[in-house]
Amino acid sequence: MSRFFSEKFRGLVPYTPGEQPRGRAFVKLNTNESPFPPSEKAMAAAAEAAGRLELYPDPACTSLRAALAETYGVTPDAVICTNGSDEVLNFAFMAFCDERHPVVFPDITYGFYEVFAALHRLPFRKIPLAEDFSIDPADYFGAGATIVLANPNAPTGLLLSAAAIEEIVASNPGHVVVIDEAYIDFGGESVVPLTKKYKNLLVTGTFSKSRSMAGARLGFGIGDPALIADLDILRCSTNPYNLNAMTMAAGLGVLADEDYTRRNCRRIIENRAYTAEAMKKLGFVLTDSAANFLFASHPAAGGGELCAALREKGILVRHFDSPRIAAYNRITIGSRGDCDALLCALAAILGRPVPTDNLSPKGTTP
Amino acid sequence: MSRFFSEKFRGLVPYTPGEQPRGRAFVKLNTNESPFPPSEKAMAAAAEAAGRLELYPDPACTSLRAALAETYGVTPDAVICTNGSDEVLNFAFMAFCDERHPVVFPDITYGFYEVFAALHRLPFRKIPLAEDFSIDPADYFGAGATIVLANPNAPTGLLLSAAAIEEIVASNPGHVVVIDEAYIDFGGESVVPLTKKYKNLLVTGTFSKSRSMAGARLGFGIGDPALIADLDILRCSTNPYNLNAMTMAAGLGVLADEDYTRRNCRRIIENRAYTAEAMKKLGFVLTDSAANFLFASHPAAGGGELCAALREKGILVRHFDSPRIAAYNRITIGSRGDCDALLCALAAILGRPVPTDNLSPKGTTP
Repeated sequence: MSRFFSEKFRGLVPYTPGEQPRGRAFVKLNTNESPFPPSEKAMAAAAEAAGRLELYPDPACTSLRAALAETYGVTPDAVICTNGSDEVLNFAFMAFCDERHPVVFPDITYGFYEVFAALHRLPFRKIPLAEDFSIDPADYFGAGATIVLANPNAPTGLLLSAAAIEEIVASNPGHVVVIDEAYIDFGGESVVPLTKKYKNLLVTGTFSKSRSMAGARLGFGIGDPALIADLDILRCSTNPYNLNAMTMAAGLGVLADEDYTRRNCRRIIENRAYTAEAMKKLGFVLTDSAANFLFASHPAAGGGELCAALREKGILVRHFDSPRIAAYNRITIGSRGDCDALLCALAAILGRPVPTDNLSPKGTTP
Repeated sequence: MSRFFSEKFRGLVPYTPGEQPRGRAFVKLNTNESPFPPSEKAMAAAAEAAGRLELYPDPACTSLRAALAETYGVTPDAVICTNGSDEVLNFAFMAFCDERHPVVFPDITYGFYEVFAALHRLPFRKIPLAEDFSIDPADYFGAGATIVLANPNAPTGLLLSAAAIEEIVASNPGHVVVIDEAYIDFGGESVVPLTKKYKNLLVTGTFSKSRSMAGARLGFGIGDPALIADLDILRCSTNPYNLNAMTMAAGLGVLADEDYTRRNCRRIIENRAYTAEAMKKLGFVLTDSAANFLFASHPAAGGGELCAALREKGILVRHFDSPRIAAYNRITIGSRGDCDALLCALAAILGRPVPTDNLSPKGTTP
C-alpha cells in the first residue's frame, strides 16, 4: 500500500476469486464454469468482431440489449449489459444503498456482497441462514433495507421459489430487492417476469455459467426501466464503453443458440443428480442444490483437508474458510468424465470403493 | 430516474461519448479511432481465445502485464491492466483523491475527469489553460492536490515536454500526479521511465488509439508498485475479472507486433502534417497537435455549424459545446483517403478550391 492511498479504502479486503491455475492441468471444479465449449455461433461471431477492433463498440449496447429483451420477454429499456454480473451488482450497491438505505443479505452467500458494501462504506447487516442453510423468506419481509439475495444461493445451492421472492418484493415497496440469478438456469424459476409487476425488483444474470462464457465477461440486469436508467447513469459515469465488441458479438451468438444452452443445462442437471447420489453412497452430506455445483461435507474428513487432498490428486474444488461452512466444499458439476474423476478421487481419499459401476470411459466427455 | 436512486448521485451528469453511428456509413473522424485494422497477430490471438470462453480469464492478467512490462521497461508489479483506460482513471480518482487530497486538472481537457470527480464527490479545481490553450507547468508546481493531466492534452493536442512533467512531479512529493498518455505515441515522449524515479507518478495508457484496439477495451497504468497495489485493491474489490480472455489475447498479439504499431503511428503523423497544411490553406487556425487529431477553428464558420455541415456531407467530427472552445472542432486523423474526403468537404462548405493537388484516388487507403 502506498502512503497516497485514501484512508477510505485502507481497511478494504478485496474479493478472492477461486484459483485459476496456470501451467499444471487440473480437473477444474472450483469456479463453477461450464465444462462445455461456448456455442459455435458465439465463437464465430466473436472471431469476426476481432477483425474490426479499431472501432469503438456501441456504448449503448443496442443489439445485445434487444436480443436479451427478446429472450427474457421484456423491453430493451428494461435491460443493462455489464462487464460480468459483478459490474451490475457493483452499480446496484452504489445506486440503491446509502446511509438511509442500508443493505441486508444472508450471512452465507456470494462473498462479493460484503466487499461491495465495504467498498462503498455502506451500512449493512447479514441475516443468518437457518441451521440447514435455507433462507426463511419471513426474515426479509418489511426489512426496511435494500435486499440482495442470490437465487439459488451460493455456495449452498438452495433455491427460493418465485412465490417466496414475490412475497419479499411485495413486502418491501420502499426498497429495491436485488435477485442474483447467476445459477437460475440449472433448475430454478427466474423472477424476471415479476420485474414487469414490481418497480423495486432488479434481477441480475450472467453468461458465465449456463452459457459457457466466463472468459468473455458478460452480465446483465433486468428491472423496471427507471431502475435500469439509474444503473445506466452510473455505468456512463464510470465506463461508458464497458463492453468490448467481441463479447457483445459472442453474446448475440449464444442468444441465437438457446437450444444449445438448454441442452447443456440438462446435461449438468443429470450429472449433478448422478454425482450427488454417488457422493451420498460415500457418506457425504449434501444440500439439495439447484445450481451447477454441489455443497458437501463428510463426517470423516474436514472440508479444508478434503480440498487439499483432492488438489493433490489433480482436482480443484472450492473451500471457504468461514466458520459456519468450514466443513463443506463447493464442487462444480463438470462433464460426466470430470464427475467420475472426482468420485474416484474421493473414494481413494476416503478408502472406500468407487460408488458407481458406470464410470465413463477415460477421456470422454461429457 | 427511480425514486430508489441514492441522493448521492441524483445530480450526476454522465460522460457523453462521441457518436457511434449505426446504419449509415460515415467517414468517422469523431472519436480518435485508428483508421488501420488491428494487427493480424491480435486478431488471430483473439479468435483463438474465443474458442475457450467457458473458462474464466486469469484475474491477475499475468501474461499481459509481463508483456507490457517488457515493452515499457518496467517490472510486472508496476503494471495494472484495465477495461479501457477509463477504468484505471476511475480507480486513480478513487484511490488518490479524497476530502484531504483534492484533485486539479485543466479547465479544457478530457471531459471524463470532471465526471469522475463528481461521481466520487471529490473536491476539485479546474486550472485554466493559457489563452493559446497551452498548459503552464508552473500552475501545477506545489499544487497541494492530486494532479491529472492528459499529455498530449485533449482536445487541444498540445504536448508538455517530459522535463516539464518531471518538474511538476518533483514539486508535488506529497501527492500523486496522473499523466494520461492516451495519445503519446503520435509524437510525444512518454514519462513512463520517470515512474522508476518518482513514487508519486502514475502513467495511464490505452490500446484504443495507436494500437487499433478501441473495440477490445484495453487500458493500463504504470507506476511505483505501491501505487499499482492500491489500484489493484480497488480493481479486486470492484471486478477482479475485469479483463476478458479475448482482449488479453489480442493485447498480447499486438504487443508482439510493435513494428506494425510504429508504422501506423508514422502514417498518422504524416497524414496529420498533410491535413494541417491543407487546412491552413483553407484559412483554419490550428493548434500544434501531437495527437491523432487536429483541433481547428475557422474565422468564417462557427464550430457547431461546421460540424453539422460536415455531418450533412457524411463526415463526423467532434464539437464540444463548451464556451472556451465552441469555435473549434476536434478532427481525427484517418487514412489519407479520409483526410482527402475531409478536405474536399471543407473546401465545398467554405466555397474555396480544394487545397491540395495530390488527392489520393477514391477508395484507397491509407
